[in-house]
Amino acid sequence: MGQFIFENRLSTLRSKFDPLGVDAIWIIQPENRRYLSGFKAGDTQLNESSGSLFITLDQALLLTDSRYTVQAQKEAAGFEVITHKQDPINSLSEIFDRLNTRRLGFEGGYLIWDLYQEVKEKASKHSPPVELIPLSRLVEDMREIKEPEEIEVLRTSARLMGDVLAQVIEELRPGQVEKDVAWRIETLIREQDADGVAFPPIVASGPNSALPHAILTDRIVGEGEPIIFDVGTRVDGYCSDMTRTIFLGNPSSYFKDIYHIVREAQDSALNSIMPGVKSTEVDSIARDIIKKAGYGDFFGHSLGHGVGLAPHERPGVGPLKPEVLREGMVFTIEPGVYIPGRGGVRLEEMIILEKDGVKVLTTNKNLYSF
Amino acid sequence: MGQFIFENRLSTLRSKFDPLGVDAIWIIQPENRRYLSGFKAGDTQLNESSGSLFITLDQALLLTDSRYTVQAQKEAAGFEVITHKQDPINSLSEIFDRLNTRRLGFEGGYLIWDLYQEVKEKASKHSPPVELIPLSRLVEDMREIKEPEEIEVLRTSARLMGDVLAQVIEELRPGQVEKDVAWRIETLIREQDADGVAFPPIVASGPNSALPHAILTDRIVGEGEPIIFDVGTRVDGYCSDMTRTIFLGNPSSYFKDIYHIVREAQDSALNSIMPGVKSTEVDSIARDIIKKAGYGDFFGHSLGHGVGLAPHERPGVGPLKPEVLREGMVFTIEPGVYIPGRGGVRLEEMIILEKDGVKVLTTNKNLYSF
Repeated sequence: MGQFIFENRLSTLRSKFDPLGVDAIWIIQPENRRYLSGFKAGDTQLNESSGSLFITLDQALLLTDSRYTVQAQKEAAGFEVITHKQDPINSLSEIFDRLNTRRLGFEGGYLIWDLYQEVKEKASKHSPPVELIPLSRLVEDMREIKEPEEIEVLRTSARLMGDVLAQVIEELRPGQVEKDVAWRIETLIREQDADGVAFPPIVASGPNSALPHAILTDRIVGEGEPIIFDVGTRVDGYCSDMTRTIFLGNPSSYFKDIYHIVREAQDSALNSIMPGVKSTEVDSIARDIIKKAGYGDFFGHSLGHGVGLAPHERPGVGPLKPEVLREGMVFTIEPGVYIPGRGGVRLEEMIILEKDGVKVLTTNKNLYSF
Repeated sequence: MGQFIFENRLSTLRSKFDPLGVDAIWIIQPENRRYLSGFKAGDTQLNESSGSLFITLDQALLLTDSRYTVQAQKEAAGFEVITHKQDPINSLSEIFDRLNTRRLGFEGGYLIWDLYQEVKEKASKHSPPVELIPLSRLVEDMREIKEPEEIEVLRTSARLMGDVLAQVIEELRPGQVEKDVAWRIETLIREQDADGVAFPPIVASGPNSALPHAILTDRIVGEGEPIIFDVGTRVDGYCSDMTRTIFLGNPSSYFKDIYHIVREAQDSALNSIMPGVKSTEVDSIARDIIKKAGYGDFFGHSLGHGVGLAPHERPGVGPLKPEVLREGMVFTIEPGVYIPGRGGVRLEEMIILEKDGVKVLTTNKNLYSF
């Protein structure tokens, strides 16, 4: 991504300072951090930050530790990198002074309770005291609408995944082991120009396919049973996410029927999506079809979710929280039906919402029309 | 792990209810959840929980969603599995009623600020109202002292990693690419009886080795330069973590000297560790040796950290927070010296602290004594 992209994003962020009543914003969420600065490091664990951003109207600081200084300087060209020793909290006073902070916005959806208490203590004891303002979904809202450069990368990520999955499905034979097939997927992804997998591949066969978040087992895949592949790559930070359910040989009419219903639910949902439509409406279109077919109790998860720097991000497409779908959003549509002990069918496409409807980014391979 | 292990852990936890003044404890942290229940699912993202535990003196509930119900029932035998629909917050009232909760302990070191606000609102509006009590390091403290069964698995995890790394180092030739070498490590781990890597392998050569958290590049490894391997496996959930710095051919006297200093710092630290010694003292023994040799500014990170279900956990072994080292703790000792632009040396062993001193769990292969 060119440097101007990060400058544009900072300008957008800064235009929100006034309405939010903040004079500085503290960014700790790894994808938000990368989105605004270009700094690619992830957090190795929840409670281990590789750095955070402090942004004011005229300054942009990246606070990190010595493990990441060089990387941060290289990747976050628009930020001044400050290296703290051991504990970032101890650097807060210095940063408050330097930025002349009075009202600091923080990410309420990411800051851990304990850390909030520590920061609040430092902030209130600072002279002059600093007020903490929780911000909700600020950068997440920006990330929801993808820029052309992001769409290009997401398209590449989806195409790469589709190609790899098609090859693995072509090679698939009864007698292969779930774990080995998943490993084959990882290996093929690694041989491409990708960062790696976006999440551990799911390969779930027979009764395992009835678990929407199946863990890999040593189960041998057999003929006629549903085999669910839920897979994603990461290319230049951007994730793809797609699901196919396939059968080696002929499925029973029972699963043919379920497959048909899931595809119909998916197609109807896809056809209903236009800018301005609510996510809950799209969810209910798919859910109603599954309900009417008698499988309402066997579709427990949301219909879809946004995809970008995170495998799951805004917008959510579920039954509970209505969100207006807008041009430039990239998200999945993935209805499923899961019969405990028997098996399941899930189909997932990743789409971009354009002015006049959806364009599917995932390749349309390995789909049946029973 | 046998079911009695989880029962013992719950008993230990329950013995702390009275001093803490709670009648129920809510566990959301994935490793703590697994430690207490056996439920192996991780959280797919920070803001996406695969479930949480509610524990009282006589009940143990696991709240999850339909994606994980079957897995939870299978793995968390001592827990009653409750499946919520869409939003776990909506199930809180029901759970408070059922458990007759008045004072709920929560993990302050893991609960996100936004979620805390939501839960607090539900809790205060509940009839009778529920008070939220932040708990600090409760299960983390239990996890700090490893049980014999855990030590066995950690030993296996470390041995497996040592064997794989020795093989990769034996195969290493000038002209190989960092990324490919790292992939070879992942592949060999996968061929063993392991869950996978504990964290993405670091292979950092030449100037890249000066970055303590180097990212993999397409750099070709060359003769005479330092090449750092920082690698770990996960076996039955338990991590290993080890670092070797190697040279193909002869290192310069400059790096020989640094290597010698780092090893001396490590050896001295290891020899100083006994039950009852403070972590900060051990850190300063290693740090002083590096300082005296003139490289004090080039060792910016902590000396070590605990290893267990998480790759980094208690105890921390650094210069700031003193922690008394005790029998049964498993942690790393990993001094390093990093010369920007030139290269670095880090050596890391993973050890168990026994009654009469440390036992190194990582294999002592691939070490030089210049």
